[in-house]
Amino acid sequence: MYFVDKERLLDKILTYKHFGDDGKGGITRYALSKEDLMARDEFKRRMENIGCDVYSDDLANMYAVLKGNGKSDKRIVMASHCDSVKNGGNYDGILGVLSAMEVLETVATQNIEHDHDLVAMIWTNEEGSLYPPAIMCSSIVTNSYLPEEIRKNYDLDKLLNSHSVIDKNVTFKMALDKFPYKGKIENRINPKDYMAMFELHIEQGPILEENKKDVGVVPCVLGMCNFSIKTEGVANHAGTTPMKKRKDALFAMAKVLLLIHEKLDKFDGLVYTTGEISIHPNVHTVIPDECVMSLDARHVDDKVIDEVKNILNNLPSTIEGCKVSTKLEWDRKTTYFHKTLVGYVEGACKELGYNYQFINSGAGHDAQFAAYMLPTTMIFVPSKDGRSHCDEEYSDIEHCYKACNVLLNAVLRTDEKGV
Amino acid sequence: MYFVDKERLLDKILTYKHFGDDGKGGITRYALSKEDLMARDEFKRRMENIGCDVYSDDLANMYAVLKGNGKSDKRIVMASHCDSVKNGGNYDGILGVLSAMEVLETVATQNIEHDHDLVAMIWTNEEGSLYPPAIMCSSIVTNSYLPEEIRKNYDLDKLLNSHSVIDKNVTFKMALDKFPYKGKIENRINPKDYMAMFELHIEQGPILEENKKDVGVVPCVLGMCNFSIKTEGVANHAGTTPMKKRKDALFAMAKVLLLIHEKLDKFDGLVYTTGEISIHPNVHTVIPDECVMSLDARHVDDKVIDEVKNILNNLPSTIEGCKVSTKLEWDRKTTYFHKTLVGYVEGACKELGYNYQFINSGAGHDAQFAAYMLPTTMIFVPSKDGRSHCDEEYSDIEHCYKACNVLLNAVLRTDEKGV
Repeated sequence: MYFVDKERLLDKILTYKHFGDDGKGGITRYALSKEDLMARDEFKRRMENIGCDVYSDDLANMYAVLKGNGKSDKRIVMASHCDSVKNGGNYDGILGVLSAMEVLETVATQNIEHDHDLVAMIWTNEEGSLYPPAIMCSSIVTNSYLPEEIRKNYDLDKLLNSHSVIDKNVTFKMALDKFPYKGKIENRINPKDYMAMFELHIEQGPILEENKKDVGVVPCVLGMCNFSIKTEGVANHAGTTPMKKRKDALFAMAKVLLLIHEKLDKFDGLVYTTGEISIHPNVHTVIPDECVMSLDARHVDDKVIDEVKNILNNLPSTIEGCKVSTKLEWDRKTTYFHKTLVGYVEGACKELGYNYQFINSGAGHDAQFAAYMLPTTMIFVPSKDGRSHCDEEYSDIEHCYKACNVLLNAVLRTDEKGV
Repeated sequence: MYFVDKERLLDKILTYKHFGDDGKGGITRYALSKEDLMARDEFKRRMENIGCDVYSDDLANMYAVLKGNGKSDKRIVMASHCDSVKNGGNYDGILGVLSAMEVLETVATQNIEHDHDLVAMIWTNEEGSLYPPAIMCSSIVTNSYLPEEIRKNYDLDKLLNSHSVIDKNVTFKMALDKFPYKGKIENRINPKDYMAMFELHIEQGPILEENKKDVGVVPCVLGMCNFSIKTEGVANHAGTTPMKKRKDALFAMAKVLLLIHEKLDKFDGLVYTTGEISIHPNVHTVIPDECVMSLDARHVDDKVIDEVKNILNNLPSTIEGCKVSTKLEWDRKTTYFHKTLVGYVEGACKELGYNYQFINSGAGHDAQFAAYMLPTTMIFVPSKDGRSHCDEEYSDIEHCYKACNVLLNAVLRTDEKGV
């Protein structure tokens, strides 16, 4: 077994905290921002220090290549992202990049022989916080490999022309054209030159911590469906409309929400979220005539997602006098990772004597799109209190170290045994 | 009995539809806008035509005075507003102004003898749509007569410096300084020179229509209380947080809303509205950690409002793991109109043989503030389908005509008998 350098890994974590420090313990590091640039410069500096060839592609996805012994012309890549949400944490995404760097530094400094080129990679704009949507650049690179049902949601032109949520005059493409790490399209990761991909990431949930596990072995990313739910009533004056004459769209939506909980709570392992709501006219003296709410539901079993869709499509058409309607905005099936690679990760956990468990990814990641192009898998690190996308996001250095060791050994096993 | 001219009244209604026509059947006529100016110009033109002295005060409240025979130096005023909400209707407010004009035109053209000066008046900015809050200028004029509990909500400086909701660089005072009908402060209505006030207004609710009544006699404006209700949970990732670990502020608020309905629906005659809601962060992939909702409750009996406050102040402190808190934003007791004037309105209905009923005003009006300064009352006109503040707002000309006759005869009775 091989081991990375815990001190060096921690040093990187502490260094990267400065690139977008929000002064409250977390960071704001939008894609293509000057903070993102600082993160990239440091990546380049450290990787060139150990003899890597560093370059980027037309989307500013960035690659550091540590040459192998020449016995294979295929590459093994470890990738994640270095952008964050607004007031996000110091681990989401970046820990995967820093672990990839740490693996290359370990291989280089310990002179570990390897047949394949090993690559540390940064995906641009995973969060989509400034330029929506999330997982943007991996959806572009892997686009032609995606199943039609997913690809239809990712129009390449629309993605490139995504407007900044802060300044509507700026598009992703405009920011990219000015970004120093915009490179050539022929540098993009592809299935001809690459054999396998690993993404180490924080869990962003409470399960590993609760089960006192060191590492999560990730067999899949959950399938999901997204609905918008609408109730339509009649707007009227708060003071002059008797209660019995009202058609209150917000009251109807509250009843819809309780009904949804009643019907969906019976499915084991299902997670569903109603995170967005808007009402019209949203004036305290007017009975609302329209309410729209989002629903996001995720489960490993596509049949359960089908049942959820069936329930949403068959809600009562009228509640509290208001018309109720639902619309499936999009859905996707569960994405399974490559069994051989999942096995290498589990094998590394076992050989290292770590306490691990299998855990499905409820969140979306670049790896889930990469999986349609290349053999891919993920490794999860426990998140303190399950918190993520906030200043409090935290993963213990012991857990980061162990997961990084699993990554190192799984990559070396892939190098040795192939996929 | 005396009768106004139905054709002339209708002509005014049809004329005023042009001043802010929104092309969809209704109007947008913000206070101090060019549309408001058109309405004022027409008021001045028509009132001067019948020999009125027309002038305005420092808030652009506008007065048309038809001289009496000199036997009394007190005035009787009929007042309402000519501004509207965005895409409002052709009756709210303006019908009271047009009816006041029609009464003066009738008295003038029929040479009806009267001891007191009779005044048609326009209150500026009742709706507060462009410069919040509503009922602004009557709250300023009557400020020193208001009970402390109401006055504390109306800071004169803050009112004058209210910012336009469309252009934050413009304040009410700035618009007023440019408005051609800004006059002198000494012209303001006051209890020394004025004996009584009437406001004719549409009901804005469905009660008169449902009860097949021609006219509403209004003894009071309902007391009310306004609360904000907050639920606080924990924000977490939609995909990675098991259902049992969630503290969902929106789900908690849905339960609060149902609980409120359960507890408040037992009060006869109570109307309550939850018209405004906001959640944080309002992102479809994040469990909401905060939800704030408004509650507006109105009832004629102040004891019932006290019971509502008691219920709101004693909601469970925790629902679905979320902290629940409520805050009384403001309240006011029921405002009773002057019994003698209410009696004159009822007397006129009876003598005219109209089908009338007593009806409390659920909405706020300029008359409710005026009532603290002068003997005041209101007359209600049925609203088709109870609709108001919308393009569909409508009152039949027969109903407008009858209410205007009631106004004319009640004013003449006041002129004859005093208050």
